[in-house]
Amino acid sequence: MNDKDYMGLAIKLAKSTIGQTAPNPVVGAVLVKDHQIIGMGAHLKAGEPHAEVHAIQMAGEKAKDATIYVTLEPCSHFGKTPPCSDLIIRTGLKKVFVATTDPNPQVAGKGIERLKNAGIEVEVGLMQEEARDLNKVFFYNISTGLPYVTLKSAISLDGKIATVTGESKWITGEEAREDVHVFRHQHDAILVGVNTVIKDNPTLTTRLPSGGKNPIRIILDTHLRTPVNASIVTDGQAPTWILTGSGVNPIREKEFLDLGVKLIKMPMEQINIREMLKIIGEMGITSLFVEGGAGVHGSFLKEKAFQQVITYIAPKLIGGKLAPASYGGVGIETMEEVVSLKIKEVDRVGNDIRIIAEPK
Amino acid sequence: MNDKDYMGLAIKLAKSTIGQTAPNPVVGAVLVKDHQIIGMGAHLKAGEPHAEVHAIQMAGEKAKDATIYVTLEPCSHFGKTPPCSDLIIRTGLKKVFVATTDPNPQVAGKGIERLKNAGIEVEVGLMQEEARDLNKVFFYNISTGLPYVTLKSAISLDGKIATVTGESKWITGEEAREDVHVFRHQHDAILVGVNTVIKDNPTLTTRLPSGGKNPIRIILDTHLRTPVNASIVTDGQAPTWILTGSGVNPIREKEFLDLGVKLIKMPMEQINIREMLKIIGEMGITSLFVEGGAGVHGSFLKEKAFQQVITYIAPKLIGGKLAPASYGGVGIETMEEVVSLKIKEVDRVGNDIRIIAEPK
Repeated sequence: MNDKDYMGLAIKLAKSTIGQTAPNPVVGAVLVKDHQIIGMGAHLKAGEPHAEVHAIQMAGEKAKDATIYVTLEPCSHFGKTPPCSDLIIRTGLKKVFVATTDPNPQVAGKGIERLKNAGIEVEVGLMQEEARDLNKVFFYNISTGLPYVTLKSAISLDGKIATVTGESKWITGEEAREDVHVFRHQHDAILVGVNTVIKDNPTLTTRLPSGGKNPIRIILDTHLRTPVNASIVTDGQAPTWILTGSGVNPIREKEFLDLGVKLIKMPMEQINIREMLKIIGEMGITSLFVEGGAGVHGSFLKEKAFQQVITYIAPKLIGGKLAPASYGGVGIETMEEVVSLKIKEVDRVGNDIRIIAEPK
Repeated sequence: MNDKDYMGLAIKLAKSTIGQTAPNPVVGAVLVKDHQIIGMGAHLKAGEPHAEVHAIQMAGEKAKDATIYVTLEPCSHFGKTPPCSDLIIRTGLKKVFVATTDPNPQVAGKGIERLKNAGIEVEVGLMQEEARDLNKVFFYNISTGLPYVTLKSAISLDGKIATVTGESKWITGEEAREDVHVFRHQHDAILVGVNTVIKDNPTLTTRLPSGGKNPIRIILDTHLRTPVNASIVTDGQAPTWILTGSGVNPIREKEFLDLGVKLIKMPMEQINIREMLKIIGEMGITSLFVEGGAGVHGSFLKEKAFQQVITYIAPKLIGGKLAPASYGGVGIETMEEVVSLKIKEVDRVGNDIRIIAEPK
């Protein structure tokens, strides 16, 4: 085992907790002395001990003079728990490998400075990209105040989301559809357009064999056309928010309020995507999973208002000039302005292919 | 090394000659004695020695009592070269592993029978699927008389082949475009619709750093709308065939004949895809590479007249309800009738993804 192996393990520990630490980042730590792992840990839940604390506790008395590999800069401030950098100093660790600094303005290099001032050797940057990817949602949200937006779609190999007659059940297989539920579980909120609600009457809950956390359900619905008897309105399985334009009927509005739905009225007649993201960001949404349909995806694309694109491709051919595609709207006119992505992962999920990409 | 390793090597040898053995299949052979490879070979070109001959010649006197691993059943008839099964018997080989039998009616099990009658142990079926894939074009063509049809398209991650304004240069990157030329090199003929000729004025030649074989260029052009000054008509780089309906203008027809273009008139007013394949099959085309556009792909899909689908996916988002997709036409109406494919390969080609699939 070398430095990269130890840091790789710390990253794996952190990765296992994605979805359960919000609003905190995921963090993993591995403690090594004389080529032996003497402690390891991850931050499990906001308010509970940080990764370093678990790892140092596991090591007990052996921790003195050990080296710690931690995926994120140790904190230097009193939050819900005392600062980890102080614990590291007090324990007498000899060296600290930090994969990436913490963009949180309360930390941002101060943790590292504190360690160095105490005479501890600190190395920053080992597996930095992997460590940043782990907390991309957290890092993006803490530095912008906006939710990290993921656009998800499921298409045939020729880019269709339905046949010309509108049939769409099912493009992808069972495994891919279950995989989508894992992403729902990991997001604060899920967003669809009102047409999807009218057409499919979805519940947008997380249905995994072992349960899962339901995200807040957000409907983009300029004219408040959501049916009052839609499952998403009546099932009480998770909070439902409806975003509307400014000109909606107050009587209809009251019907929804009585049903416990939160209505968010935009200050303008139409819904502006960037304005909407600002509003829900202020309301505490750190991550948004956008499930379409085509018009909604087209709007996010037009505004270039997204941080991740997840596309499931089913090995099927549907054809048809008029069969709907995944990104509608007016589209981008020139090849020069087209949004270029960087592919992060290509995987087989059941019989389908999943591509995860980010804007360049 | 075990039996599978030796056969795997024979398959690799055969694979290296794809595109240079037509009308013959590709074949590889590996000769083994006392856990040592004592000979190997591949069939390089029609009229030249078969794979078994090369491998046995390489082994020389050592060949007696050896085991041969051959990707295709040894032939039993006098073609341009004497039968390989006789050579194997005469050389005194002890055992023959055959990956797959030869569907060629002149062979079809007779080679294996001949070997068994001579007291040689024969095992058939080791790595059969891989061996069949090597010669899928040959096997399909020899048993149907029709060309093996590959539909190729290059799309954005949201399934578009151009922006709403029709811009399409370039969806995919340089590596993917060069990869397409490798496939052109491997096919007898390439096919496009007349709209592609009018819009893009392509040459449809094979442009690889090391050259390459130009396929015959076929245009589907019901009303003979191909411009007489199109590159494909005038450049003389490869034969050009135009397939038309029955009702074309004889004066225009003569213009093309004078330019050396072969005109193939369908017996009916419109072009019928299956009829067309029968005609060009009879004219000796064993493999057809269909490069679109959307209307042509839509027609092949509607008729389910294809054996392979190659899709390049560029990590780009274009959007637009009216931006063209890869498979146009009327499309398939119900999810039940949609064409299901089996994915054979998913690869990264430069920044793009290439998916090779076959109808189930």
